[in-house]
Amino acid sequence: MAGFPIFSSRRVRSTPFTSRIEAAGLTSYTVYNHMLLPTSFSSLEEDYAHLKKHVQIWDVAGQRQVEVSGPDAHDLMLKLCARDISKAKTGRCYYTPITDANGGMLNDPIVLRIDHDRYWLSISDSDLALWAAGVAEGLGMSVDVREPDVSPLAIQGPKSNDVMAEMFGEDIRSLKFFHYAHFDWRGRELLIARSGFSKQGGFEIYLHDSELGPILWDDLWEVGREFEMRVGCPNLIERVEGGLLSYGNDMTRDDTPLECGLSKYVSLHADHDFIGKAALKAQNEKNLRKGLMGVKISGTPIEPAKNPLTCRTNGRKAGIVTSACFSPDFDTNIGIAMLGNGITSSGTQVDVLVGNEWRTAKTTTLPFS
Amino acid sequence: MAGFPIFSSRRVRSTPFTSRIEAAGLTSYTVYNHMLLPTSFSSLEEDYAHLKKHVQIWDVAGQRQVEVSGPDAHDLMLKLCARDISKAKTGRCYYTPITDANGGMLNDPIVLRIDHDRYWLSISDSDLALWAAGVAEGLGMSVDVREPDVSPLAIQGPKSNDVMAEMFGEDIRSLKFFHYAHFDWRGRELLIARSGFSKQGGFEIYLHDSELGPILWDDLWEVGREFEMRVGCPNLIERVEGGLLSYGNDMTRDDTPLECGLSKYVSLHADHDFIGKAALKAQNEKNLRKGLMGVKISGTPIEPAKNPLTCRTNGRKAGIVTSACFSPDFDTNIGIAMLGNGITSSGTQVDVLVGNEWRTAKTTTLPFS
Repeated sequence: MAGFPIFSSRRVRSTPFTSRIEAAGLTSYTVYNHMLLPTSFSSLEEDYAHLKKHVQIWDVAGQRQVEVSGPDAHDLMLKLCARDISKAKTGRCYYTPITDANGGMLNDPIVLRIDHDRYWLSISDSDLALWAAGVAEGLGMSVDVREPDVSPLAIQGPKSNDVMAEMFGEDIRSLKFFHYAHFDWRGRELLIARSGFSKQGGFEIYLHDSELGPILWDDLWEVGREFEMRVGCPNLIERVEGGLLSYGNDMTRDDTPLECGLSKYVSLHADHDFIGKAALKAQNEKNLRKGLMGVKISGTPIEPAKNPLTCRTNGRKAGIVTSACFSPDFDTNIGIAMLGNGITSSGTQVDVLVGNEWRTAKTTTLPFS
Repeated sequence: MAGFPIFSSRRVRSTPFTSRIEAAGLTSYTVYNHMLLPTSFSSLEEDYAHLKKHVQIWDVAGQRQVEVSGPDAHDLMLKLCARDISKAKTGRCYYTPITDANGGMLNDPIVLRIDHDRYWLSISDSDLALWAAGVAEGLGMSVDVREPDVSPLAIQGPKSNDVMAEMFGEDIRSLKFFHYAHFDWRGRELLIARSGFSKQGGFEIYLHDSELGPILWDDLWEVGREFEMRVGCPNLIERVEGGLLSYGNDMTRDDTPLECGLSKYVSLHADHDFIGKAALKAQNEKNLRKGLMGVKISGTPIEPAKNPLTCRTNGRKAGIVTSACFSPDFDTNIGIAMLGNGITSSGTQVDVLVGNEWRTAKTTTLPFS
């Protein structure tokens, strides 16, 4: 993929693993939470094929943590999270939309209750700490909101169980999906969750000391040799196939979680109020003006879309394709689209503007199947 | 400058001027407020030499606006701004630190009072809208906080008056520094300020309709021909020489505006309270633990620092160099540093770690002279 080089600085931060990924054949970066995030190594297609078959190590330090702690931490979390986490347990991970007063998506973190009055929010790409601290400030709550020195490192792919068991012991095989526990490494405890931004299975290690980044990486690398482990990263093709939504790409503050198909993570009937609840209640889930769905786009393989692609139906604007690429396994172009104008069901035909060419496309459910 | 290509997407937004700058010899990007921002064209050194002598057109659309409007807009602004803007006038620009309850810097926007109850904050690289909306939400204020479709385009350099007068009429020459007014262009009014992120003089055009980006660019380009105008961008060397601070590089939430040398923009004696005021009052300005200053670093020309450089004095850690580069005009390496450990005056010797080599450096005032 051609492109212009990125000029990094303190503001566009390196990660504890940057030296390793740059030495391992990195071919492109993006920026995520003011931090470098790899986007390809061999190529999108080769990375994708390898991820679905073997195992990869990913520098996802850009998934920064927002730590909310103090006497009012739990109450603040109830205000912030659209999902009812009033009974959140330590050892579990909770995916939740965070919305503004209008129900607009501000972020979609994974919440970890680290302790009774201490949470980590593993965030997508917006400064959620500013929202959390701002709300707490306005409400006069007694909480501390900050970014701890935590840098997630992911092991993803079908062979991830084998790599992790070899590295941390057989017990890790029984860790359930979206559960976390602490595992010993070089005399210290590492928080490890069964989670990650792929549908191929895997783990995320929440490394709590940047200085140890290269050592942890090298240890995993050594163990991974016998499992054909490669360096990888969240893969556009695999995530679109799997219907994994990317905040900033597929959802923005202009979209509500209901429109994004996330209603199962929105607790409209909880006893407490969260910010955005009233607006989301007023938004009739059965009669949304728009919604996210999949699209299969006809014609020759397309390049990953840098900007949203315009959609129309019957000559009228119908929405946008928010992410798109060619899928080798489905042997067609696939995309995620925010569509309105009466398009609610699979199998609807829409036209999508790719470059200067209108192509036919058909809506489908997510994930692709 | 070597580097890895950036993979752009909807999340890492293009600007209304991207097509023009990519066609004009762009050589590197950074990301600023989730948007592409050019960082070099010919080279840092050539761009710098040209900027100081002629005139440049800059795509600074990444300086996004946060619009705060509604009945409580003014009261919210008083809460947010460390500078006393209680008597802010339309037609003026106000640089102000925004701080959290501990006095930590969250952003340093330029505030424009667009109307009695409507402000624009032209922000540096953090999601200030989330802070503003969060505080307003917590306080139950009646305001709307959003990002309007406004993309600043800058004309910078000694000949900027000539270009702007040719384009918008002679009256623009009398626009004062940090004032703004509306000027006619193709039958519409453009908000133009005498401001910009260089010390070479110039203007920022707040284009209020992305669709018109390429047309505005092309019109300015045509006018600029006779003044040897080139495409440029905020230039690292020029801004370090001029002591222009970059949020995220030279200042973070761990630093207060007093420590950043911005006390003249902090109104500790205003009648109203702003968030952070109490903490800043408690911080004794005469006895700060650390502060920003310039450093001249000895030895051969250094590459721009990707990470902060460690400083020590008498064998003890003394702080970090936050930005650094080689200055052709001063014929030495220059940097901005956050130094503590008793270092408060110019002419103090410190050691700076460049790569694996300790170099001697001498502190100096900012801007460099």
